[in-house]
Order: sequence, then structure tokens, then C-alpha cells
Amino acid sequence: MAIQGKDEKHTGSIRLGMVGGGNDAFIGGVHRIASRIDDKYRLVAGALSSTPEKAQASGAALGLAPDRTYDDFKQMAIREARLKDGIEAVAIVTPNHVHYAAAREFLKRGIHVICDKPLTSNVADAVKMVKAAKASDALFILTHNYTGYPMTRQAREMVQDGLLGKIRVVQVEYAQDWLAEHQDIKQAEWRTDPSRSGAGGSTGDIGTHAFNLAAFVSGLELESLSADLQAFVHGRPVDDNAHVMLRYKGGARGMLWCSQVAPGNENNLRLRIYGEKGGLEWAQEDPNYLWYTPFGEPKRLITRNGAGAGEAAGRVSRVPPGHPEGYLEGFANIYSDAAEAIIAKRNGTARPEGVMYPTVDDGLLGVRFVDACVKSSSRDSKWVSMTG
Amino acid sequence: MAIQGKDEKHTGSIRLGMVGGGNDAFIGGVHRIASRIDDKYRLVAGALSSTPEKAQASGAALGLAPDRTYDDFKQMAIREARLKDGIEAVAIVTPNHVHYAAAREFLKRGIHVICDKPLTSNVADAVKMVKAAKASDALFILTHNYTGYPMTRQAREMVQDGLLGKIRVVQVEYAQDWLAEHQDIKQAEWRTDPSRSGAGGSTGDIGTHAFNLAAFVSGLELESLSADLQAFVHGRPVDDNAHVMLRYKGGARGMLWCSQVAPGNENNLRLRIYGEKGGLEWAQEDPNYLWYTPFGEPKRLITRNGAGAGEAAGRVSRVPPGHPEGYLEGFANIYSDAAEAIIAKRNGTARPEGVMYPTVDDGLLGVRFVDACVKSSSRDSKWVSMTG
Amino acid sequence: MAIQGKDEKHTGSIRLGMVGGGNDAFIGGVHRIASRIDDKYRLVAGALSSTPEKAQASGAALGLAPDRTYDDFKQMAIREARLKDGIEAVAIVTPNHVHYAAAREFLKRGIHVICDKPLTSNVADAVKMVKAAKASDALFILTHNYTGYPMTRQAREMVQDGLLGKIRVVQVEYAQDWLAEHQDIKQAEWRTDPSRSGAGGSTGDIGTHAFNLAAFVSGLELESLSADLQAFVHGRPVDDNAHVMLRYKGGARGMLWCSQVAPGNENNLRLRIYGEKGGLEWAQEDPNYLWYTPFGEPKRLITRNGAGAGEAAGRVSRVPPGHPEGYLEGFANIYSDAAEAIIAKRNGTARPEGVMYPTVDDGLLGVRFVDACVKSSSRDSKWVSMTG
Amino acid sequence: MAIQGKDEKHTGSIRLGMVGGGNDAFIGGVHRIASRIDDKYRLVAGALSSTPEKAQASGAALGLAPDRTYDDFKQMAIREARLKDGIEAVAIVTPNHVHYAAAREFLKRGIHVICDKPLTSNVADAVKMVKAAKASDALFILTHNYTGYPMTRQAREMVQDGLLGKIRVVQVEYAQDWLAEHQDIKQAEWRTDPSRSGAGGSTGDIGTHAFNLAAFVSGLELESLSADLQAFVHGRPVDDNAHVMLRYKGGARGMLWCSQVAPGNENNLRLRIYGEKGGLEWAQEDPNYLWYTPFGEPKRLITRNGAGAGEAAGRVSRVPPGHPEGYLEGFANIYSDAAEAIIAKRNGTARPEGVMYPTVDDGLLGVRFVDACVKSSSRDSKWVSMTG
Repeated sequence: MAIQGKDEKHTGSIRLGMVGGGNDAFIGGVHRIASRIDDKYRLVAGALSSTPEKAQASGAALGLAPDRTYDDFKQMAIREARLKDGIEAVAIVTPNHVHYAAAREFLKRGIHVICDKPLTSNVADAVKMVKAAKASDALFILTHNYTGYPMTRQAREMVQDGLLGKIRVVQVEYAQDWLAEHQDIKQAEWRTDPSRSGAGGSTGDIGTHAFNLAAFVSGLELESLSADLQAFVHGRPVDDNAHVMLRYKGGARGMLWCSQVAPGNENNLRLRIYGEKGGLEWAQEDPNYLWYTPFGEPKRLITRNGAGAGEAAGRVSRVPPGHPEGYLEGFANIYSDAAEAIIAKRNGTARPEGVMYPTVDDGLLGVRFVDACVKSSSRDSKWVSMTG
Repeated sequence: MAIQGKDEKHTGSIRLGMVGGGNDAFIGGVHRIASRIDDKYRLVAGALSSTPEKAQASGAALGLAPDRTYDDFKQMAIREARLKDGIEAVAIVTPNHVHYAAAREFLKRGIHVICDKPLTSNVADAVKMVKAAKASDALFILTHNYTGYPMTRQAREMVQDGLLGKIRVVQVEYAQDWLAEHQDIKQAEWRTDPSRSGAGGSTGDIGTHAFNLAAFVSGLELESLSADLQAFVHGRPVDDNAHVMLRYKGGARGMLWCSQVAPGNENNLRLRIYGEKGGLEWAQEDPNYLWYTPFGEPKRLITRNGAGAGEAAGRVSRVPPGHPEGYLEGFANIYSDAAEAIIAKRNGTARPEGVMYPTVDDGLLGVRFVDACVKSSSRDSKWVSMTG
Repeated sequence: MAIQGKDEKHTGSIRLGMVGGGNDAFIGGVHRIASRIDDKYRLVAGALSSTPEKAQASGAALGLAPDRTYDDFKQMAIREARLKDGIEAVAIVTPNHVHYAAAREFLKRGIHVICDKPLTSNVADAVKMVKAAKASDALFILTHNYTGYPMTRQAREMVQDGLLGKIRVVQVEYAQDWLAEHQDIKQAEWRTDPSRSGAGGSTGDIGTHAFNLAAFVSGLELESLSADLQAFVHGRPVDDNAHVMLRYKGGARGMLWCSQVAPGNENNLRLRIYGEKGGLEWAQEDPNYLWYTPFGEPKRLITRNGAGAGEAAGRVSRVPPGHPEGYLEGFANIYSDAAEAIIAKRNGTARPEGVMYPTVDDGLLGVRFVDACVKSSSRDSKWVSMTG
Repeated sequence: MAIQGKDEKHTGSIRLGMVGGGNDAFIGGVHRIASRIDDKYRLVAGALSSTPEKAQASGAALGLAPDRTYDDFKQMAIREARLKDGIEAVAIVTPNHVHYAAAREFLKRGIHVICDKPLTSNVADAVKMVKAAKASDALFILTHNYTGYPMTRQAREMVQDGLLGKIRVVQVEYAQDWLAEHQDIKQAEWRTDPSRSGAGGSTGDIGTHAFNLAAFVSGLELESLSADLQAFVHGRPVDDNAHVMLRYKGGARGMLWCSQVAPGNENNLRLRIYGEKGGLEWAQEDPNYLWYTPFGEPKRLITRNGAGAGEAAGRVSRVPPGHPEGYLEGFANIYSDAAEAIIAKRNGTARPEGVMYPTVDDGLLGVRFVDACVKSSSRDSKWVSMTG
């Protein structure tokens, strides 16, 4: 509880490039802030747009050197790989359908990839991505950023420590409202275009986050699902609301709801897990709190870095309890853990204890999840196995 | 907002009898308090237990006259129907499997029935109950008490007024934790015995409440459902957790979760409804609040009897906003509305505007809902039509 | 946590009269409901208004016999005292300045008095009231109803059990907004008229509640106070907002804020108590919750009748945790505890363990509190001793 | 509500130095993160500790060049002022008593000062600081960081727009619990040593924040105060709890509570402002929410960057509503606004609209506030004028 300093240790910046994330983009800026917060990266190169003029303008706006502002990611991969001080890692923040093509170029040249989710826009690409990542010496980090929040790590640690006993029920949801009507903005446009986002709409954009977070915290493996997908907005070619029932290996059962048409929900990602011995509840919009009920005892409010919070959360907290950390800090935790892994690799040393980040395998599961949702829904909600 | 009095108007007490609700019972006491709050009933007779000694002791404890304390409901129906000042209404608060047999005796003698939910323990009995009720001149009131809360009525009124536009999504849940382990108490015992509770466990006990409330507020009619039921506690012969996907007529979709094994949940009945123009959220444990978001505007907190609350809620509120009313007051609203209907019938006058209560038809829907859940779950979650 | 019945035991109704509380009144109706909830009183007589026509009409509306509907409380006291089945107790629910004159008539005839707060409109009357109550064989119950909430009793019990250690800080507030503008309604009118309400406006109407509740839970005795009172609404002759600093015997310190001009506050009575070992927080608008933090541990949410709640709260709870009880039930607890005391007295038996209610002495303290606030404020917030 | 990008514009980093903030420090690390988030500063020099070995080790840990790691701030000011690429701004994050001596050296050499609060440990130094700042061409920024939260700026904007009407009541509090017992850690030690922190304990450390925030949002000027200060922990030479009544110019009244001994409070800074037409409520631990009640209408929840939020909040938001921003982002807003002012000054251009930060004058008011609290408390809570 006390105010205590946390010593920083400057470990030498990682030279970072970025694909996508030019002007008008949303998630690129988030990645950049996340990379800066703990001073572990320096952005030095970018292929920030597929439109050359925009790529140049965006690079200039970010203060990149003109000769390291590229019009195309392949050209960037080739040249940076040859430079003595070329990038060591690249952040890929394009629409989904470009992820694989871009990542491949960097992976095969040994440049670490930090890739936005979902991994790809379809299963075939996802399988190829896994293959490419395994074949490469480089690391692959997927930014399922909600796993970077201290209190989701706290929750995971409590589950692993057995505080919930055998898990029975998982309730997870991610509700938004911004697509309740047709939107004419860039962020809406590509997300509702199957050729770029993939066959899943809300399932791919946010359902994958919910699915991933539930797995991260519970440690459960999804066996099969039964889904009912809807596109409520007239003419929308992908789902904007999805109801999914889940069967996990070992007997746990769950429900997942994702929606982009639920007025009053901004980014209402909420996870509740119930086991034989206790329950946990967490909500992304109030991320510094974790509710824990040991069965038969009063509910307890565990706060980030506060009384009752453990190692896993403390390791990724920067400020004392009661001083809220948010989305950007959680995102930064993925970046900083990735940095620690990259530096350990660079130095040939052991990865520090506690470092964790979502991998290409998690990404494949996410894409399979979307695929299974679409398949089940098209078969009148028949149960579909996650293993195909 | 201002403190204002609400004039009481003593309308002449209704003579009430009770079947079930002797010592150790839970819901009987609730019915008795509910009947007293607005001074519209007087309990004068009872068949409070199927065990004669207990029936007598319970009657004495409640101050009933010995000659109006019965050992058996049939005997009570027969005699009370003959008395000049015999009961005008009877509350049936036994385990589910007795509801029909008991109600029938009173209905056929023209005594109004106020019956606990679910209507019966199986569809066959429910159909017979409907028939009996329609054949009788007496009223039939089903105590789906959550429809008595001022703010669920407020929500219903807002939906009817079109504030949400066409409804798209219904999320409803009722979670408890008291059956997370095997319980050796009376209240647990009959609720987990299919011969008394019916084929549904959590679905019948609390799932029906959730289903009914969603229908009450949304005005939607359920078309079909897909369910995955579980009995997590070893050896339990009925479900203690259920995941249900809902398809309503007209295109709305929903999810229903009920559970009695979710640690940290006491009586967490929560309803969220989203339409084209707005969203509503209500939780039974904080019943004086209703959250309303007109799409694109800030969320608003409407309080019982407070600014923004309308006629339907004000009609059934007793105290100013900020002075919370609770479960018993909500239950009492069902009783008091029933009383107004009974008195109107007694006097041959029009039923006052705004009077409402759940009917035998609502009860049949509830029993069909449980039946469909069990059926769907046994068919690997195949969609099952509510119309059989 | 489990659903369990609570056996009722009909102890024989107490015959109750009422002074004040006719049509248009607010608190009279609350007293009547409170008296009915646990079936321990029967209203049989009333002097419901000082206006004869209104007294008669109100009595008829409540179903009182015409010969027990009085035009004047003195006449009622005289006649009822002579009746074989005359009233045993009287509820006094008039404006403050009438309390003493009315109570006196009943006390001297041995009729128990249940009196609304504040005790009187000035200290002189309050001292006389104490004298009259001590001289009488009858009981005197003051309806500081917030002490009837299960969770304020839970809090008191926890303080008495030493869970907070030595208390250091008390923060209490009662904020409303209904008098933010001039109001032309009856309830506003007498409350802002010093000849009827007394010299205190918000201090007398709600500040006394806050003061009383803090004392009830903390067990602390107020030594002195320093106050700054305001009348923000133009022309209002009494305070509508008050800031008060508190010094308790033994070294604890506190702050009290009461206001009737704070938009967004309905009946925001909130108490926070901090000791060497822990803290407690309670809010009247969400009365089923009590927050408890043992220093250095996570905050715990104790719910009425739920895990972690003790004897004192369980004794006055009617329904399981998660089924909220509210203002009327809390008020009823005062009535029901009074009934148990009255019956014990009637029967010459010991008062059951746990029975408690605010007394005439608490009432005198409340009136002294208002007097001290007014005095201190008029002396530029000089500290004023509570002992005069 | 929609997800939209916010274009970054790299404006050229400001070369930053730091005084204090070496290993074991708390607030230094916060300043460094805050300076990085929006990529507007680059830390290039430091006198990080008054202990030479620690200064060197800390500089190395942060990756500073050895020749720009100083043992003493004066030496740093002298040398950096001469370097061609010397620091343009310095962050002073030492204990309070060093602020003036350090700031003076930089101010007189034209180096902008970003100084932690409170401004100084006593009024005499504060007055000298004002003089030094006015005499210098450099900017002076005081990190009352809570004014950097988007929703406190939103609140201020709403007050300025007249949505509350004339303000009547201010309730502000800042409660912590970490000093409820004697603490043997560095952060506790200097904060409770009057020779370093000043005469105020909790009043100086957190009371100044509360006072400043209330002034920032309300726009009100404090006229006088009446205080009752306590040191509850045995032997503590400064206050650890304070009760303060406030009188603002123009007739508004307020209460301020600050405490470091209230178990269950982490950094519970909470502001409530009530005017003739409405009320606002904000809490630092949930900083993305602002509650607004127009008198007579339902309470509204305004979210950062969401529906109902205006220009002032949007300007300093980085991510969409529902993705929480926290303490570090709020702190960063002060840094980034300072950067915009510094760059405007560097370029001789107009300061962009909306740029704001606390000034040396705000700092003087804060120190006067502490002084007045101590003075009033020592005079038995006599009202003390803020103008001396």
C-alpha cells in the first residue's frame, strides 16, 4: 500500500519499425505509446501506409528519417535487414488481411514481429503464419493486450494457485455500441469488410479478445462451441453481435457474448470465472479492481499493487494502488515483456521470470475460434470442434 | 424528487388463506409480509403443512383460529367456500409439484389463487392449470415477483414508449452460489428433487424468473432456444447451471444464464436490453436504479420515483427516491395489484389503470421454457421451438 | 447464504394510535407500513390532523372506527386511556413543535410513545420531554430509523467487537437536493419554518440523523463542535446546508455535512468510520452493503444476512442476502424492536436479547446538536460544547 | 464514441534534465514516464541524488551519459546552460525543502522548470520562488497533476460554461491509509519530517492537491479557512489528518478532508461541486467518469472522450472511451501541455489553444493554504484569511 519507488533500469533501446499506423490509423498510435512508456524501444523506421504519399507524410510527422520511411513493407524488410543499425523488431498494425504477408518478410530475415490481433483474416493464413514463426529464429508477439493488465495477470495467478478450485463456469463478454448504426469512418469500414477483416465481424474484432482473455486467465482449452451470429445493421456483411456457448476440456462450460450494437457499452470487456472454491470478476473499463469471492466468505476487492495483490500484478505495475493505470499501461506491459524477451535473446541470457506475452499459437486459436463461430452459426448452432 | 406523501386508501381487507408456508418454509413468510405491507389482506386460514402437527403448530404461531387451521388443502377449500366469511383468495406456496392439485380445489370453488412460481413441475400440469383457471370465475395470479419492482415496470414502459426502438439483443442472467456445494437443508433438498421441483433445477427455480422478466420488460415472445445444461455438483439429478441462447419472434436474439454454483453471486438477476435507439440495464440487487443510454448520449441513472421515472414506477412506489425499496416491496406490488383486481371484481367495477400481474399464461410459458431447455440440452443443444 | 426460512411468531398485536399523519402527510404513511410489516401492531385510533374535517376524512380512509377518530390528541389520550381495549402505544408524527405537547398527554397516562425525530423543536422542550418520559412508566421510542438498518447494526457490532480498534476519524454526511430551489409544497413549507421545525433547517431535519447514526455506530460521545451554516436559497429563514467539525471524547475527530441544496443527491446519508485497525463505510441508498477494510488487507463487501454478517444484522433481516431490504424494513425494525420491548413489559418478562431502539436521551442529544450548530455558526464557528 | 485515430505530430524533443529522482525515489519515475508518453521530451542530464555515488549509479541505470550525470544541481545548471545542446527544461522532484534552491539556479539561467508540488516547504520560500519565476524568462510549471486528467478539465469547462450556475458548495477530500501506522520507509520518512516537508503533513502532501483541484475546477478563490488538524500516530510531528471548513469569495462554502490514516483509502481524491443549477462529482480512482446532474433531471455519466464530453477533455485524451486512461496519462498531460508552451516559446509562436498547466502562483496559494491550516488549527480553528 505504501508509496514506493520502482527503479527503472535502462536496458538499451530496441530499434523498432512499424508497418501500418500512418495518419488516421488508431491502433498504430497506441502501439507507439506502448513502446515508449517503459523506454525500451526507439521507433526508427516505418512503412506506415500502402499509399506512398501518406507513408512519407506520416513518417515525417513522426520524425522518422526520410531514408527509413518506406513505401512498402517488403522493401523495408530487405533494407533494414542489411543495415548495421537496422530494426530489431517490427510492429505490424495493418488491417488483418495484410498481417501474414508483412510478418513473413520480417520473420524470414530474423526480425522480431509484434503483430496486432487477430493473427490473420483466415485459418489458412494463420497456419502459414505459425509455420513461418516456428521456422524463424525471431520472436513472435501477438498484442492481445488485455493480458497485459496487472489484474488479469493477478487473476491468472490466483487460478493457477488453486484459489478457485476446479473451474466450472466461464462468463465472458465484450460489448461495444459504436457500430449500432452504419458508420462512414475508416475504422468502421475495414472492420466490416470481410476481404480485409475476415469472415468474422464482431467475433474477429473483439470476440477474439474475449476468447483469448478467458483462456489466459482460466488456463482452459476450448473443445467446441455453438454459436448464433447476427448482423443487425442492414446490409452489413459480417456479424455485429454474437452469442456463443463454450465447452472446455475437462468439463467447464462457458458463454461468450460480443456485440458492437449494444448502446451504453463502450469497451465493456468483462470476465467472470467460477470454480468449486471461489469466483473472480474483472472488467476492462475498471481494470485496477479484481473481485474475489472465496465460497462462503465476503467478496474481496483486490486492487492493483494493493493489499492482496501478488507477484504477477506487482511486476507489471508502475504506480501505487489508487493511482489508476489503464489501457496504455496494459498495452505497454506486452511491449515491455516482449522487450525483455528480445533483450534476453540478444544477450543470450535467460528470460527473466514472469515475462509473458501472447504467441503465434494463441493467434491461431483466435482465428480458429472465429472460424468455428461462423461455421456453427451457419449450421444452425451445431457444436463445432475447435480442432477442426 | 421532493418528499411527498402518498395517501393510503383502505379498501377493505381481502380474507386470505395460505397453503404451505409453515415453520421452516421460506417463501411463505415472504408472501405474508407482502400481503400486509399495503394493508389489503388479512390472513385468516391456512393449510400450512402436509404434516398435521406442523400445520397446527404453524397456524398457532401465526395467530390463526384453530378451526381455520387445516391439515389439508382440500378440506380447507371445501369448508372455506361454505363459510360466510370464508377466504376470498388463497396463496399457494408449496413445492412446485403440489401447485396444480391445490390450485384446482380453490379455482373450482371460485376462490382467487395467488400461486408461487413456477406454475407447475411439468407441462402437462401447466396445461391443466390453464384450463382450470380459464374455467373458473376466480382470478389467477402468479408471483413472478420481479415484475413488481418499480424499475422493471419503468423499463417496460420505456420499451413500450419506443425509447429503445426495435429491440435487437436481450441479455439476462440469474446467478446464485448457495448450491455450489451439496446442501443438507430443506430449501435445497426439494429444489434438487425432480419429483417435486420438476425436470429443471436452476432453470425452474430461477431461470424461469429470468425468462419471465425478459419477456415482461421487452414485450418479446420467445420463438426457440438452444440450451446447454449442467449439473456440476456430483450426484445432483437436476441442472445447477444453464447456458441458453434465445431467438425471439421478430428477429431479436438473446442469451440467458442461470446458475446456483457461481461463488460471489447472491441473487444476481440482471437484465440488459439493447435496441436500435438505446439500451437499458437493471440489476435486482440494486433495484432502485435503472440505467438508460439513448444511443450517442451519456448514460443516465434513473431512480425509483426520481427525476426521469414515469407513471408505471411511481404508481408502485411508496417512499421518495433515495429511500430504497426492496424485494418485499416489489413482492407486495404484485399482491397489491392483485388486490385491486380482486376488489374491482368483488365490486363489479373497472380494474384501475396500471394494475398488472403475471398470469397463468405466463406460468405456462415458464414451464414450457424449462421443458425446452431440458429437451434442447438432451439433444446436444439443438434449437427447440417454444410452441412444442 | 443459503435460502432459509425465518419463522414468524405472532405475539399478539399491539393496539396502536397515531397523532398526525393524515392525508398529504409523508412520514405517517411510513410509520403505518413499518408497523404492519412484522404484524406486531394494529392501528385502531387516530388524531390524524389538527383540522377536524381532515382528521375525520383521514381516519375513514384508513378504515378507523369513527368513534376512535379524534379531532385532537388530548381528547384521544383521555378517552383511549379509559377504554378497556384502548391503545397501548401511540405514534407521534406531527411537525416537530407539536411533539412534546402530544407526547406528554400519552406518557402521563402510561401509553407508550413512538415519536418521530427530532425530539422537539428546541432544547427547553427536549429537556421537558426527557423529564416526562422518565416520570412515566411507559416506553419512549424515537424513530431515528437509520439505526434500524441491519448493516448499521452490523457496523455497530463490529466496532463494539473491536475490529476497528480505537476510532480516530468519523466522516458522516446527509445530502439531498429537493430544496435547491424554493418549494411550495407542504413538506417543504413546515420544514423551513423555524416556528414549527425549530432553529435548525437541514441540521434539524437530516443533520440530526447523521449525528445520531455516527454516535450509534461509533459509540462515541460528542464533546464539542464548530459549525458554519448557510441558507443558500434566498429568503430561507433556516439553514439549508451545514458544515460541522466534530470533536469526540477520547480524541476521535469528525466532520459532518448536511445539505438540502446539492443537486444529484436524493437521500445520500453516508457514514465512514476509521480506526487504528480498520475502516467501515456504509451508504443509506445502498443499505444492504457494508464495506470493511482491515488495515493492510483487501476491502471486503459484507452483505446483509450474507457471509461475514453477524448476529445483530441477522436478527433484523427477513430475506436472504441478495434480496434487498430497504428503508421501510429498516423503519419496521425500530417498530418491531419497540414491540418486543412493549410486549416484554406487558408480560413482565425480560426484554429479548438484541432489542434496541433510540431513546428520549438520544433525542435530547439530537436537539442539543442542532442548538450547538446554530450557536457555533452565529459565533463565527467557535467550538461549542455539547454539554452547554 | 467511435474508434478514431489521433494523429501524432512529432514536434522535436525537448532536452530535459532532472534533479532528484534517483534509485528508491517514487515521483521521479512518474515524471520520466510522463515525459515520454507523448514523445515530447528526451532525458539527457540529471543530478539524481545528493549522494554522489547514488547520483552516478542512478544516471547509469537511466542510460545518461556520464558527463551529464551530476553530483549537484548547481553544477548541472551552470554546465548545462553553457552546452550548445544543454537541457531546455528541468524537472525538480526532490523533497519539498530543496525545490526553491534548485529551481532558482535553473530559472536564472533561462531553463524552464517543471517542479513537483508543494511549491516549497514554507511561505517565505514560496514568495521567493514566485519572485524568481517572474524575474526569469523561463516557464515555471507545477505538477499538480490531477488537473491533467481529462475529466477534471471537462468539469472545469462545464463550470465555466455555466452548467452548474452559481456555485454554492464544494466538497473535496483526499484520503489515504498508508500512514495509519508508523512506517520505516524512505517515502514516509521525509514526508513526516517538518524540516523537509514543511509544517504540514497530510495537508502539504495531499491536502494541497485537494485544495488546488477544487480551485481549478470551480474557479473559486479561497477567502478564509477554519481547520482542525490531528496527528493520530504517536510521535508524528506533522498532521496526518485534517478537517477544514472553507469560505470562498462570492459566498460559496466548502469542506476539505485529507487523511493518511483512513484504512481502505488508497488515493481517494474526490471532488463534488454543487451549484444553483446542477452538481458534478469526480473521483480520482475512477478518473474516466464524471457524474453530472442537472437539477431535476437524472444523473448522467459522462465518460472520457465519450458522448457528452467536450473539447477540453478530448484534447488530452489518447484512446477511445471505455479504454481507461489513468494517473500516468493525466500526469503526461501536464508535461505535454508544458511542452507545447515551451515549443511555442522556442519558436516565438502563439501558444496553442487549450494549453494549460499549474503555475508558480498556484504553488504559492498551495503553500499559503497549508500555512493557514496550521495557523487556524493552532488557534482553536479560528478562521484564518488566505491573504495572510
